[in-house]
Amino acid sequence: MTVSTTEPELVTRTDNDGFVTLTMNNPKRRNALSGAMMTALKDAFDKIAKETTVRCVILAAEGPVFCAGHDLKEMNGITECDQHASLFTQCSDLMMTIVSLPQPVIARVRGMATAAGCQLVASCDLSVAANSAKFATPGVNIGLFCSTPMVALSRNIARKHAMRMLLTGDPINAETAFSMGLVSDVVGDEELEEHTNALAAGIAARSGMTVRLGKQAFYKQLEMPLSQAYSYASDVMTANMQKHDAREGIGAFIEKRHPSWRHE
Amino acid sequence: MTVSTTEPELVTRTDNDGFVTLTMNNPKRRNALSGAMMTALKDAFDKIAKETTVRCVILAAEGPVFCAGHDLKEMNGITECDQHASLFTQCSDLMMTIVSLPQPVIARVRGMATAAGCQLVASCDLSVAANSAKFATPGVNIGLFCSTPMVALSRNIARKHAMRMLLTGDPINAETAFSMGLVSDVVGDEELEEHTNALAAGIAARSGMTVRLGKQAFYKQLEMPLSQAYSYASDVMTANMQKHDAREGIGAFIEKRHPSWRHE
Amino acid sequence: MTVSTTEPELVTRTDNDGFVTLTMNNPKRRNALSGAMMTALKDAFDKIAKETTVRCVILAAEGPVFCAGHDLKEMNGITECDQHASLFTQCSDLMMTIVSLPQPVIARVRGMATAAGCQLVASCDLSVAANSAKFATPGVNIGLFCSTPMVALSRNIARKHAMRMLLTGDPINAETAFSMGLVSDVVGDEELEEHTNALAAGIAARSGMTVRLGKQAFYKQLEMPLSQAYSYASDVMTANMQKHDAREGIGAFIEKRHPSWRHE
Repeated sequence: MTVSTTEPELVTRTDNDGFVTLTMNNPKRRNALSGAMMTALKDAFDKIAKETTVRCVILAAEGPVFCAGHDLKEMNGITECDQHASLFTQCSDLMMTIVSLPQPVIARVRGMATAAGCQLVASCDLSVAANSAKFATPGVNIGLFCSTPMVALSRNIARKHAMRMLLTGDPINAETAFSMGLVSDVVGDEELEEHTNALAAGIAARSGMTVRLGKQAFYKQLEMPLSQAYSYASDVMTANMQKHDAREGIGAFIEKRHPSWRHE
Repeated sequence: MTVSTTEPELVTRTDNDGFVTLTMNNPKRRNALSGAMMTALKDAFDKIAKETTVRCVILAAEGPVFCAGHDLKEMNGITECDQHASLFTQCSDLMMTIVSLPQPVIARVRGMATAAGCQLVASCDLSVAANSAKFATPGVNIGLFCSTPMVALSRNIARKHAMRMLLTGDPINAETAFSMGLVSDVVGDEELEEHTNALAAGIAARSGMTVRLGKQAFYKQLEMPLSQAYSYASDVMTANMQKHDAREGIGAFIEKRHPSWRHE
Repeated sequence: MTVSTTEPELVTRTDNDGFVTLTMNNPKRRNALSGAMMTALKDAFDKIAKETTVRCVILAAEGPVFCAGHDLKEMNGITECDQHASLFTQCSDLMMTIVSLPQPVIARVRGMATAAGCQLVASCDLSVAANSAKFATPGVNIGLFCSTPMVALSRNIARKHAMRMLLTGDPINAETAFSMGLVSDVVGDEELEEHTNALAAGIAARSGMTVRLGKQAFYKQLEMPLSQAYSYASDVMTANMQKHDAREGIGAFIEKRHPSWRHE
């Protein structure tokens, strides 16, 4: 295990065997998504996108708050409409970067994830919440509706549950977030790291080619009508089947041995 | 608090501070959506749409049944295909009026909500159910599939759960409706009014501009592919940020004081 | 009750009053979806599509495993890309056949339903799971992502729950499958047949015309934007209203007698 730092203070990176943990590291500002924090995250993800030895990413946070959303002091200091537009576009780009990253991203959440912080969780492929985690979209309290967070939120949970969060700003807890679909795993606070690492290590132990291809196809087919989705997914599966790792995996299954992946 | 009446007997209106309660008032006919009832509701909503001092609407019902759907006696008395078409179109228009109303609408449900009555609940932005409330789409029992109700229902809950309601006509209870996503709040029967009023008052206490803008954007972005939804929502948030109430809300948050909304 | 066999050994058919049970009958191969099994199922469904006396279908399985997905030995024996493409296309066609079958199809699941076997469940209109049933999409374990199964799965359950199944291959149990939306009923193992028969008999006791028309409209309107869906569903309801069985059903309801369906 090696530890390095992409943007000295804002995002730290820890490399494990086959997976990487990116940690938002500005606990004093509750890991707010300032322009600088978003740039640091985007840079870290863009770098990982090209690293074929990385097969899964954990997105974590330092301190008692996962992420408090946009940096309101920064936003308040801006008077130009163009600069606001640029901040919101940067934020949307960051979310799309996670969705289109070749590797799966797991949010590892302790404490509050609010507004764009909640959106960050909703934008990840999986999310592990500590029992004490909470999720909210409270923009309505400050006159700024969580309009971009709701894009991700409303694609994760039923519309009335999303609307309730958006119109009231009320937080939901980890168990509720799981039953609604915002969270894929809930664990005790003391198990959070170990559980998330095991989940990431399990994904990293599979063929990187298979996972990459599957993640990309997942979001693409979701936006197609059923018959077109089937036609597309059949093509993906046929292409998958021609790859080394599918042949190896099926062979290993039939011969009752462990497969040896080349990740291609 | 003032009490007035839009359509003398069918729909009553009660004004509270910032929110309005519309009550379907034909308990003897189980608040059936006759042509006259739909006209009274549509008129009441259309009037509210123009009232900027109203920032939330509660849709309630008099008597032990929330709403039994279309008026079957009226429907049975009709022989012309055109007149049936006109009734179903009127019903769909009423539902679309709720979805496109600038203000959020909260269904307050006690007793049974069936067929187009269930659709009414599904079409509202939020819904508070008393523990004793029940929801069903039993058109299949009378040879008339709940085809328009399913448009709203299938956009609220998972398709197998929707299909089960549609194919069997079996009712679901309030707790199940909550876990499936048809209902946003479940409370004891004796707390129904107080809870719903508090929810509406909470929404009415926020900036009307913010809530209006957010509700409209919610349904629009839901029908877009992800990247287009982000582009649209970023524009909405930028526009929101230029408004008085966003500046005021963020300023108040930073200065730790209560915001003073102008609702614009 | 008469018993006949479409494809001698692979799929058996049992006719009850108004509904049919198709049973996958290759327990030694865990009812794998070999080319021959898919052909037998498709032929059986195509035949049923034309039988107006059949108003509901149960899809069941012989033995302790519901269905293990594709036949990996068969797939491994194929070297031509075209032949793989043909198998995956055949599988997608089978799933589309279930969705577009005029009659509702109920999966009756005991034991494991994995990969394309899980897809089979997801593709049915309803699904009854025995308490001991389990569902998984473990293609990732053999280097072949469950890309076509995910088309059906991701249209049944929330995306993070689907992603977790797809990326880990971990099974979910019947209760979880119900709360997520993959399953419409969960019953004790010993009640599985009786419960599913009663559900099918209940649907078969309704007007076949009404059910047929409703099922078809359900999937069509799901892929439309809201206003278009309402316009379409209003037309469907108007057409439904002109049919004998709607007139009869409404008349019977008003006169408090049992309706007498002609299924037209």
